[in-house]
Amino acid sequence: WASLIFSEEESSPRDKLQRNSKGLADFCIKNIDQADFGRREIEVAQQEMPALMNLRKRAEEEKPLSGAKVVGCTHITAQTAVLIETLVALGAQCRWVACNIFSTQNAVAAAVVEGGVPVFAWKGESEDDFWWCIDRSVCADAWQPNMILDDGGDLTHWIYKKYPSLLKRIRGIVEESVTGVFRLYQLSKAGKLCVPAMNVNDSVTKQKFDNLYCCRESILDGLKRTTDVMFGGKQVLVCGYGEVGKGCCSALKALGAVVYVTEVDPICALQACMDGFRVLKLSEVIRQADMVITCTGNKNVVVREHLDRMKNGCIVCNMGHSNTEIDLVSLHTSELKWERVRPQVDHIIWPDGKRIVLLAEGRLLNLSCSTVPSFVLSITATTQVGERRWANEYVASLHLATFDAHLSELSDDQAKYLGISKNGPFKPSYYRSANTHTHTHTHTHTHTNAGLSNCF
Amino acid sequence: WASLIFSEEESSPRDKLQRNSKGLADFCIKNIDQADFGRREIEVAQQEMPALMNLRKRAEEEKPLSGAKVVGCTHITAQTAVLIETLVALGAQCRWVACNIFSTQNAVAAAVVEGGVPVFAWKGESEDDFWWCIDRSVCADAWQPNMILDDGGDLTHWIYKKYPSLLKRIRGIVEESVTGVFRLYQLSKAGKLCVPAMNVNDSVTKQKFDNLYCCRESILDGLKRTTDVMFGGKQVLVCGYGEVGKGCCSALKALGAVVYVTEVDPICALQACMDGFRVLKLSEVIRQADMVITCTGNKNVVVREHLDRMKNGCIVCNMGHSNTEIDLVSLHTSELKWERVRPQVDHIIWPDGKRIVLLAEGRLLNLSCSTVPSFVLSITATTQVGERRWANEYVASLHLATFDAHLSELSDDQAKYLGISKNGPFKPSYYRSANTHTHTHTHTHTHTNAGLSNCF
Amino acid sequence: WASLIFSEEESSPRDKLQRNSKGLADFCIKNIDQADFGRREIEVAQQEMPALMNLRKRAEEEKPLSGAKVVGCTHITAQTAVLIETLVALGAQCRWVACNIFSTQNAVAAAVVEGGVPVFAWKGESEDDFWWCIDRSVCADAWQPNMILDDGGDLTHWIYKKYPSLLKRIRGIVEESVTGVFRLYQLSKAGKLCVPAMNVNDSVTKQKFDNLYCCRESILDGLKRTTDVMFGGKQVLVCGYGEVGKGCCSALKALGAVVYVTEVDPICALQACMDGFRVLKLSEVIRQADMVITCTGNKNVVVREHLDRMKNGCIVCNMGHSNTEIDLVSLHTSELKWERVRPQVDHIIWPDGKRIVLLAEGRLLNLSCSTVPSFVLSITATTQVGERRWANEYVASLHLATFDAHLSELSDDQAKYLGISKNGPFKPSYYRSANTHTHTHTHTHTHTNAGLSNCF
Amino acid sequence: WASLIFSEEESSPRDKLQRNSKGLADFCIKNIDQADFGRREIEVAQQEMPALMNLRKRAEEEKPLSGAKVVGCTHITAQTAVLIETLVALGAQCRWVACNIFSTQNAVAAAVVEGGVPVFAWKGESEDDFWWCIDRSVCADAWQPNMILDDGGDLTHWIYKKYPSLLKRIRGIVEESVTGVFRLYQLSKAGKLCVPAMNVNDSVTKQKFDNLYCCRESILDGLKRTTDVMFGGKQVLVCGYGEVGKGCCSALKALGAVVYVTEVDPICALQACMDGFRVLKLSEVIRQADMVITCTGNKNVVVREHLDRMKNGCIVCNMGHSNTEIDLVSLHTSELKWERVRPQVDHIIWPDGKRIVLLAEGRLLNLSCSTVPSFVLSITATTQVGERRWANEYVASLHLATFDAHLSELSDDQAKYLGISKNGPFKPSYYRSANTHTHTHTHTHTHTNAGLSNCF
Repeated sequence: WASLIFSEEESSPRDKLQRNSKGLADFCIKNIDQADFGRREIEVAQQEMPALMNLRKRAEEEKPLSGAKVVGCTHITAQTAVLIETLVALGAQCRWVACNIFSTQNAVAAAVVEGGVPVFAWKGESEDDFWWCIDRSVCADAWQPNMILDDGGDLTHWIYKKYPSLLKRIRGIVEESVTGVFRLYQLSKAGKLCVPAMNVNDSVTKQKFDNLYCCRESILDGLKRTTDVMFGGKQVLVCGYGEVGKGCCSALKALGAVVYVTEVDPICALQACMDGFRVLKLSEVIRQADMVITCTGNKNVVVREHLDRMKNGCIVCNMGHSNTEIDLVSLHTSELKWERVRPQVDHIIWPDGKRIVLLAEGRLLNLSCSTVPSFVLSITATTQVGERRWANEYVASLHLATFDAHLSELSDDQAKYLGISKNGPFKPSYYRSANTHTHTHTHTHTHTNAGLSNCF
Repeated sequence: WASLIFSEEESSPRDKLQRNSKGLADFCIKNIDQADFGRREIEVAQQEMPALMNLRKRAEEEKPLSGAKVVGCTHITAQTAVLIETLVALGAQCRWVACNIFSTQNAVAAAVVEGGVPVFAWKGESEDDFWWCIDRSVCADAWQPNMILDDGGDLTHWIYKKYPSLLKRIRGIVEESVTGVFRLYQLSKAGKLCVPAMNVNDSVTKQKFDNLYCCRESILDGLKRTTDVMFGGKQVLVCGYGEVGKGCCSALKALGAVVYVTEVDPICALQACMDGFRVLKLSEVIRQADMVITCTGNKNVVVREHLDRMKNGCIVCNMGHSNTEIDLVSLHTSELKWERVRPQVDHIIWPDGKRIVLLAEGRLLNLSCSTVPSFVLSITATTQVGERRWANEYVASLHLATFDAHLSELSDDQAKYLGISKNGPFKPSYYRSANTHTHTHTHTHTHTNAGLSNCF
Repeated sequence: WASLIFSEEESSPRDKLQRNSKGLADFCIKNIDQADFGRREIEVAQQEMPALMNLRKRAEEEKPLSGAKVVGCTHITAQTAVLIETLVALGAQCRWVACNIFSTQNAVAAAVVEGGVPVFAWKGESEDDFWWCIDRSVCADAWQPNMILDDGGDLTHWIYKKYPSLLKRIRGIVEESVTGVFRLYQLSKAGKLCVPAMNVNDSVTKQKFDNLYCCRESILDGLKRTTDVMFGGKQVLVCGYGEVGKGCCSALKALGAVVYVTEVDPICALQACMDGFRVLKLSEVIRQADMVITCTGNKNVVVREHLDRMKNGCIVCNMGHSNTEIDLVSLHTSELKWERVRPQVDHIIWPDGKRIVLLAEGRLLNLSCSTVPSFVLSITATTQVGERRWANEYVASLHLATFDAHLSELSDDQAKYLGISKNGPFKPSYYRSANTHTHTHTHTHTHTNAGLSNCF
Repeated sequence: WASLIFSEEESSPRDKLQRNSKGLADFCIKNIDQADFGRREIEVAQQEMPALMNLRKRAEEEKPLSGAKVVGCTHITAQTAVLIETLVALGAQCRWVACNIFSTQNAVAAAVVEGGVPVFAWKGESEDDFWWCIDRSVCADAWQPNMILDDGGDLTHWIYKKYPSLLKRIRGIVEESVTGVFRLYQLSKAGKLCVPAMNVNDSVTKQKFDNLYCCRESILDGLKRTTDVMFGGKQVLVCGYGEVGKGCCSALKALGAVVYVTEVDPICALQACMDGFRVLKLSEVIRQADMVITCTGNKNVVVREHLDRMKNGCIVCNMGHSNTEIDLVSLHTSELKWERVRPQVDHIIWPDGKRIVLLAEGRLLNLSCSTVPSFVLSITATTQVGERRWANEYVASLHLATFDAHLSELSDDQAKYLGISKNGPFKPSYYRSANTHTHTHTHTHTHTNAGLSNCF
């Protein structure tokens, strides 16, 4: 099928006029005819997202998001579709656009459109397409967003730059990524952030569940689907031992890889040691690595000098939040030949014939797998405006049913002994930032652990 | 793309006349034009099969398989292609056919044909196509096989039935699967096995590396690609704790699943206990399982009664050697609705709306991932006719370079102390059958641990 | 040897007059003659405590603790001895007493006394002995403490009650345990905490290294030394999935036990699920448990009703911070017979002959193993008064040498990109409380992450 | 207490006349008065040995070992005591002696004597004591053994040398260790083995359960009890990746150690790779190791040259079957100082002050922990004379109750499909030698998988 994809030389979606079965034409996607298949994908995803489905049931009658006009810019996957349709079920109006030119699942986009939500996105957009889609998502006849749900900050940036007048209506920005939070923080420092912003990334649920547990699974999945590599016995170098790095290392070790870690932070380095990983400098192990995975959130972690010293066949990929970790610029030089061997897989060929296998052109490897639970959080705040700590515990409890887990309950006596309420919150107020590995800083205008409904 | 596959209503490959670039027309595959893409897949696979590539280098000049005319019936994957082309490099002439109607990688088949080897196989053959292909692989103008490489016994069966006269030329049968070995054994008991047969399945390398280690990786990969399921916290029931079951359990446990085991054999059951798995009867845990995986080699392990009691959304699949483990017949009844949601994924819908997710229609889940190293073994015997134990050690040593592993060497004194040669074999003669979980029995006519070149 | 211990019917240390080799008589321990043996134990411990040894080297000349008069009340083990002697090396004068009537290593106490530090402690003190020793440690001719290092709050309590006049000289209290912190917090709420107090328990190093990693090792060690139990295949119930519970579960699972978890907190419960543990109520699994381990920090978690339903031979022990988790009072009834089978091991025998194996009478199982790294922290602040976050990172970096770990360094450019200094701190200011599972609350008078030298 | 042991300068047990409570004086042990304490230890051990206790119940009436006169030479531990007393319960008469001068548990020996079985053993025998005890165990008034149960071959050797006339009465030798089996094999090759000998070491149960699973637990226990070392982050070198090495590596890795493996056998080396361990030569990693553990069964694996290059504080111990793996002779030179710091722990001090920590003087580290299940096997054959394969499965099934494991049963149809009986044996006849890593060879006179009752 891959060859089919490659040979598809179709016209751009921007040149096509399509309508969904109810006549809606306000969207731009690959092919509305794929909606049925996309719907099945969404149904599969729903089985894995009980908390959102639960929320729909509990909150549908109240329509707590009634009046919300959400413009969203995220990866467009089956999981996102479940989020979007939950927002709609809760009363919101939505328009959506992709935050990444490659990650859109075309059939899913079709299903969302068929369900009535305008989407502007397809797999394989050009840079120009990307901004055109963002622009289209913001501008609609007789519709102006009052809520932004962003992943990476591009949508927010566009609105600040092109539609500053819209900002006064915006009642909140929910930002997903470290990069986006950092951009907000700089706006804030410059005194330009006039809108309440919520940092999803620092939430407990995001840190603990999305990063650690999702990455544990998605690193294996991402590598297998792209390269079919066997993990057993391979030497893997993981750069960074925050939650993402911990998840990657744990999974790879479990499947028999020999894992090395690089770190700049002594606490994380010591954790890596205690977890059984050798902590070394990149230059010390680069020659022997079969795979190199970046998870630092930093830039230029793997540079040309390292790539020059890697052995033939070494796989290089990025699980961090930005696409800056691998110095790609240094690889676009005349002596190196690029050969695309599969979708998302490039061989970069050195003059002596050495091949480095670069995945997703250095973009985030786990596009489809690790974006879900953080969204869950945003939603949750919907029904929990007041006590934010409690929100986290509520999200967690919504998921326990999936695992048929049975919580114990404190007796009156025990609750008194601990000095807390029988029904929680069980964590102290400063727990919020637990275990975070990021370097972002809170600010009066950036609230964490909150969600859409804090703005309504 | 999946919808593209589904909508492809093309004519049968049997109706098409194709030629490769050198004019060869003696083959039947989906589309010779995909050869370039298939070649890239084969090149990727070669990176993971250093032992075969090594053998090519070492043995190319000697052409030890010169004179061998091999007809092969296996899964047709990039890995098989590396095997076939190694056989050719060693001097053999080959014709190939698929042992499974679904597992053929069309582009790989095209690349092999472009390389000059007749292949008769495509993804999605009908039952009639299947036997037609087998027939075509055996019959060629002025070419008669003297060697069979079979996986499952269908090719051998066909030759016995349709071309008994060919048998006198056959100098050896290499059989891969337990099922095929069992069929050979029955032939042998009936006095009808007049050809030396080699049982690859019982070899140390097959048991230890192919089954245990490959399944450890392929169970995760197979489940993820088909269902995107998250493993963490899921309750999984694994039927059978032989090498395949051990591999599955180990991987699932490592990724945070709660794993239960069923077993009939007390030794395997005790191993499961000591490895940290609860050993229970199927009926005791069936209601709580999120996934059920069969690895017994037995039949009707999961029957309608169990399927009726599974919970909504339960995933059912088979990693065992046969496709008999799940009683599929019982699911083809009028009250149950089947819905194909993705390739290889069916939802079976009960009257009350409950959905069971059946993968690969109960066939082997890990078609593409676990077939490699056993082939490696067959080849190895090529260069090692005499001492079979040694062969296993030789195969192992060929792979050590991949892992940059450095073997220690015995001193003269130490070798003397142990009473063995400095260069091995290191295992006693009875090691052959180590750890096997199968129920097949040796016979004077079925030699194990051997390969093609034992016949030359 | 155990029988030797039992048969020792010696006079009380309080009745003996002993002197060390320099004539010092101001101490009360079991037997000063064991000093040589204790010295060897301390030397062994020093090898495992490189950070403290390092500090001695670095800070010896400066004597930063010069003027400090420390009275300490902790477990008296070889590790504590390394701490005490480091304090002395840094310039402090110390007197020491045990915080637990059973945990004193007599030979170690002798070695410390021989080294010149007055110690008042022996294994097997009575309740009366315990308070007598505390009193003796506080009161000395011409010596008044200006610093308290406490574990559990008994020493602090005694000073508040008996020697309130001393408080005005006290420049700081370092408290180790949750219980002690809670008592300080209540003093503080009542407006009676007139001394700066430092909560070691909430520090990152304590939470991450002492609790998680130490418990991972000490749970196995504690169970083996007392019962020789085999872990493989055993069903173990762990109550509480904070850091201590996580460490216990991880170790037991790794050695093949089937582990169940009870939790009241949904976030911790969800983590347990994702880590592969069934979360159930105590009453659901109590009948099948081979071992029950409490790690909640709560009281009456395991009560008579549970104990009545346990199976014969079930092992019950406590890894939590208090000794209240198992309802011991309910076991001291006439129908139950207690039989001491080894030191720290009691069989409690039901009328029908059922035996429950109770370890350490419900006190903390890992007395000797898990108390070290938290002390390391206290010391560290010695050299780092200013920036507390940094202290944690400094402690971590001191330990990296042990593991021959090589930290990477940020380039100027990377540091700028992250908005942090090249040399750290790498964690945001709110990181302090990471991952804590405790229910204590900060207060203006209780500073965390600090150590002795903050007071000088 | 350790100092108490050291200071005990008592008279030799050989000089003492003792009697048990029934007047028996035919024994020589440390102190009969310790019997009560030893009895409690045996009761604790019984809880962990359900199969033997089960056998007592099932077979007691039949007295299948009636007429057997067993002289045994093994480690004398609580577990051995359970074995001995089971033999007696089954009708045998026994006399026992220690196979190791250090491993005897004195109180257990006392309890066994109090129970009526003559024992000649104590902890800390001299070489002369050792042979004197063996001699005493063989020679008794009006009692001549007809059965030998040996571990290491010393008893057998003594009888061959001193009492050849006894041999004609001996109906069987059960040998436990590789070393002993090798000695028997050499006797056999020389035509001097006139007695049926049973090799317990090669049995499935011994290999799989005793070696792999027991070592997984005992390596941790052995290291902790002697050195209190923390495993997390430590670099450990394991020499040999047979079942013992696999168990050690698995446990150490699970607790966070970085493990390296040396191997001579490519199959084992490849397994180590696939399990995630770097396979290197000893000389490549010796400088960085914190611990070195030998598990090869070979001699002079760690020699002076390696010891010279180890770093300060490196722990060296042996888990293999012989005490030859570490070249101890090379350490008894004048420039090295030995210092005993604890029982079983010597510091060997180099002229520059470097200390190497040698455990158990290079003898087997896990004396008390890993000797049990192999004995279980010997006993089992008691009730299963005919089919040896079945015996293994029977032993396994006896243990399943401990784990509350529920075996599935084959239907008639399934049994027929597999071609086996519904009740087993489930393994093919050649399964016997599964997974063995030893280098011993079978011989017409050495039967494996058999036990005492095969001789009656």
